[in-house]
Amino acid sequence: MKSSESLNEKIIKRQLIFQGRYLHLEELELLLPNQTLAKREIVRVRNAVAILPIDKEKNVYLVRQHRPAIESTILEIPAGLIDKGEEVEEAARRECEEETGFRPHTLKKLITYAHAEGYSTGFITLFWGSDLEYTGNINLDNTEYLEQQTLSFEDLSRMVDQNKIIDSKTILATLYCRGLIDNL
Amino acid sequence: MKSSESLNEKIIKRQLIFQGRYLHLEELELLLPNQTLAKREIVRVRNAVAILPIDKEKNVYLVRQHRPAIESTILEIPAGLIDKGEEVEEAARRECEEETGFRPHTLKKLITYAHAEGYSTGFITLFWGSDLEYTGNINLDNTEYLEQQTLSFEDLSRMVDQNKIIDSKTILATLYCRGLIDNL
Repeated sequence: MKSSESLNEKIIKRQLIFQGRYLHLEELELLLPNQTLAKREIVRVRNAVAILPIDKEKNVYLVRQHRPAIESTILEIPAGLIDKGEEVEEAARRECEEETGFRPHTLKKLITYAHAEGYSTGFITLFWGSDLEYTGNINLDNTEYLEQQTLSFEDLSRMVDQNKIIDSKTILATLYCRGLIDNL
Repeated sequence: MKSSESLNEKIIKRQLIFQGRYLHLEELELLLPNQTLAKREIVRVRNAVAILPIDKEKNVYLVRQHRPAIESTILEIPAGLIDKGEEVEEAARRECEEETGFRPHTLKKLITYAHAEGYSTGFITLFWGSDLEYTGNINLDNTEYLEQQTLSFEDLSRMVDQNKIIDSKTILATLYCRGLIDNL
């Protein structure tokens, strides 16, 4: 079978189980290519952006945030959901500014990836942001709470190697940026 | 604030919304450090393993699988959920053999990461597997359907650079293995 071909699974039935603020849960009934019926639970979420903002001195501007799902406070690159009708690049600039106070004037798209392809619809697009302008316009939703932290890219990179950074978006952005850091 | 400190969020209430075959949905009510109340929807899933199996000729053994959540058939490294009471390394060996027919006698742990820290409890541990023995013991659950595909590591690596590989585990494993490939 060629890589471009789709395996022929059919959705027989789709049922909305729960409609939440941040996610919807659906149950799908599928007919697999081997004619077996199977059920899958699917989480429908909005797509997101994440951005690694880096200045000419190779400092990176990160956020610390408590993540109740994993019961941990972690250090991450700024990120957030894309608003309805918003351009992906504008979402990246907006989230970076709202969470760190820095607006990136240059963006480089690194990758778009599915973060939980087994059960979630969600994709994240990663950017590297440079030509940073400090506006100080930190603007968090009142149900968000996070803190800013500045690191050298070298320190971030070491923390990734030590697996002290544990979220996929920050690890991926750091690994991609290693190849680009000398072009700053 | 030091990186090791936890932001002081308190869970006020935890409610089980849905108990599924693969995931549970909970709603949490939180008291943030700024004394604001916030709600979060949390998906509880089992942790998983994923493994990049590579032989002495630098061929990698992958699987193609339809992922209804993202409505795509994608090429991935073998992966799966850790059984209750199972060691992480044994889960990696088992999933590799069940999905590709190759049992890796040497494993190197690459990283453990949270794949959707915003709403999911799930972690994935990634391995590189070598000293492959072909047993042919492909053993899929009858609600699973996937196909095997062999590629050179070089081709996989190029597909990652072209963003033709779109799942976090396969992208991450490929990027980590680039640094290790010359030690084979």
